Amino acid sequence: MNVLDIIDKKEKGELLSKEEIKYVIDGYLDGSIEDYQMSAFLTEVDLLGLSFEETLALTDIMLNSGDKLSLDIENLADKHSTGGVGDKTTLVLLPLVASLGINVAKMSGRGLGHTGGTIDKLESIRGFNTSMSFNDFKKQIKKIGVALTGQMANLVPADKKIYALRDVSGSVDSIPLIASSIMSKKLASGSDNIVIDLKVGSGALVESLDEARRLGKLMVKIGKKYGKSTTCLLTNMDEPLGYAVGNKLEVIESIDTLKGKGPDDLEKLVIELSSLMIYPFKNISISEAREISYENIKNGKAYQKFKEWVQMQGGDLSSLKVNGNVMEVHSKKDGYVKKVDALSIGKLAHKLGAGRLKKEDVINHDVGIVLKVKVGDYVKKGDVLLTIIYDKIKVTEEEVLECFEISVEKVLPQKLIIDIIK
Amino acid sequence: MNVLDIIDKKEKGELLSKEEIKYVIDGYLDGSIEDYQMSAFLTEVDLLGLSFEETLALTDIMLNSGDKLSLDIENLADKHSTGGVGDKTTLVLLPLVASLGINVAKMSGRGLGHTGGTIDKLESIRGFNTSMSFNDFKKQIKKIGVALTGQMANLVPADKKIYALRDVSGSVDSIPLIASSIMSKKLASGSDNIVIDLKVGSGALVESLDEARRLGKLMVKIGKKYGKSTTCLLTNMDEPLGYAVGNKLEVIESIDTLKGKGPDDLEKLVIELSSLMIYPFKNISISEAREISYENIKNGKAYQKFKEWVQMQGGDLSSLKVNGNVMEVHSKKDGYVKKVDALSIGKLAHKLGAGRLKKEDVINHDVGIVLKVKVGDYVKKGDVLLTIIYDKIKVTEEEVLECFEISVEKVLPQKLIIDIIK
Repeated sequence: MNVLDIIDKKEKGELLSKEEIKYVIDGYLDGSIEDYQMSAFLTEVDLLGLSFEETLALTDIMLNSGDKLSLDIENLADKHSTGGVGDKTTLVLLPLVASLGINVAKMSGRGLGHTGGTIDKLESIRGFNTSMSFNDFKKQIKKIGVALTGQMANLVPADKKIYALRDVSGSVDSIPLIASSIMSKKLASGSDNIVIDLKVGSGALVESLDEARRLGKLMVKIGKKYGKSTTCLLTNMDEPLGYAVGNKLEVIESIDTLKGKGPDDLEKLVIELSSLMIYPFKNISISEAREISYENIKNGKAYQKFKEWVQMQGGDLSSLKVNGNVMEVHSKKDGYVKKVDALSIGKLAHKLGAGRLKKEDVINHDVGIVLKVKVGDYVKKGDVLLTIIYDKIKVTEEEVLECFEISVEKVLPQKLIIDIIK
Repeated sequence: MNVLDIIDKKEKGELLSKEEIKYVIDGYLDGSIEDYQMSAFLTEVDLLGLSFEETLALTDIMLNSGDKLSLDIENLADKHSTGGVGDKTTLVLLPLVASLGINVAKMSGRGLGHTGGTIDKLESIRGFNTSMSFNDFKKQIKKIGVALTGQMANLVPADKKIYALRDVSGSVDSIPLIASSIMSKKLASGSDNIVIDLKVGSGALVESLDEARRLGKLMVKIGKKYGKSTTCLLTNMDEPLGYAVGNKLEVIESIDTLKGKGPDDLEKLVIELSSLMIYPFKNISISEAREISYENIKNGKAYQKFKEWVQMQGGDLSSLKVNGNVMEVHSKKDGYVKKVDALSIGKLAHKLGAGRLKKEDVINHDVGIVLKVKVGDYVKKGDVLLTIIYDKIKVTEEEVLECFEISVEKVLPQKLIIDIIK
């Protein structure tokens, strides 16, 4: 076999065999296939797609490129989010699910994007340890039902190397590449019930609903081929989730949500994800699962579990005061909020220092944005649209106003949960 | 501007501006755009194509990426061949055209392919200098009307770097990339009349006639945009040109042709190319140009010019005896020759050591193949199909027989000149 022949075969529209795909992936991992050859192959896949059989083969080869996590823990659920602006779901969801007796073993990444990843958010809690050994990780889950750490085992090294290349060569948005990347990691981490929160909209990896639906169906189909219960929620990311955008600000909003005082959209999403994660283990209906999830927020058990979790990982919640300068931006007219553009808000947060676009960038945990409005709200001229917490770099009022659209006509709130694919 | 945005724009099917294409080419030349990003871009172009305006912009940017040859010589014609198995046209054509009073300043490359390039072929003449200074090159053309050298000036450095990458990342067969590569070099070398011999068939860069026609039309259109007379011949490369394949063997066949004793197909092609190269300068019809070209072969003037040329560049024609072991392969049955597969013959010659696939490979100038039949010939069982001149590596009779197809039904000779595009 020869990588140029395989590139040529793909160009001609012929189907690749599993052996050919394995030849490419293995060759790229062992260095015999160069970056520029792999990026040519990935660009072809991006433009021409992959058949289901090819996607399944790619997933399987990536899944088997490294270790698999053997936690030997029952009732283990997993959730993955494709990420978006203000997405602090994991921080609320994990303790809630654990408080309901279902285990969650979560490995998260640092964020590459406009705002930080879950690891970055948790690191705004002083002392929170995001680098656990396998044994401590396993022990903690057995003890309190929840643990979260950065990458630990050598899971799916092929995905790591390929993702890094896709990121700098323009093929991050390929449906089969996203599907095989997510599913190989989920399958390697050994959960029996996989729930995926697939964000759709301006602030998400996938902007079009059609593409999101294709991606969702593909991931569910792959999961089922491996005998795993797999569900994919399509959720709105045209506007940020909740009101807070920025690491420490998002932790604070998560705590509010765990106390039952969070934004409606965030609470709704957390309840939905929780019920999908727990219902198969408990042998109850989804609506029963929703009820007991909501119950554990109201009775404080989820928040208790959160405090227990943070303490177990060394975090000090008394450190959560936000430091910074404050700037408010006001509406210039009366009307209904028609748009709070997630991507623009994300870029704004990044400009303030809340995220990184390169690995080397340093995050400022305190800075960020607190929105005061959601799509569908009515505002009067002079009402605060958002508050900015900044350190040195101040953004202009004009930049901020460009994130919003105010309309004289009535606007309905955005639909949060667009579809559920199982 | 940002290379990822441009890759993304191209993926979406939007047209790129000249500034965007220039940003990519300049960035690749100065190293700010990486190989893997360029190969992603080139793969997109390969799969999605370029509009005529984009192709023209790319050609112009490459043309202006380095020096242009200012020879300050009148009546300067140029010919380019896309190359094929047994293609020794340049060796016959250059002295013929020069003998008719039209100047040819030829820069050729070493071959990367199954058999050597023109430079390699000429180097099988002992002492032939293929590395001239600009001044000597110019002086020689002024004196005898012909000179040939390897790359001299820094012409089209962008093409050099991009071609090397295409070669190892699977985008050599893109029509707009081939067109801009050839035309930028032809335009940089300053000829007023560009004639292109575009080979079509199994042994050529372009296998399909439709694609060849598209490529030919595109190159002629580009040439005309620059006010240059441009003609493109589509010629057959399903079987090798002439009978000899291998460096020294091809020089010998070229001399035979200059003496009027060469293969019909080679002579016909040379006469056609010569007449297209000279007729605009001489203000005569193509058929008149054909006549005087043929005349200069018959009267020995073309061969005289060849000897003068070789001598001027230091070559010793007495060195042309071929050394090697000889192996004959015979037909296993009676019938008409239906196929002499150019690609397979080329691969055979490469296996003998006549060509290189990597820059570092060393060529054996003596080895090669002398075909005894052409498509349409009738052979009897036991007739010689070809003679192989080898050093150490012998090929098997079976391998050789696979290059041929013998049919009981009558077969017509292949049409050499398929189309002329102007």
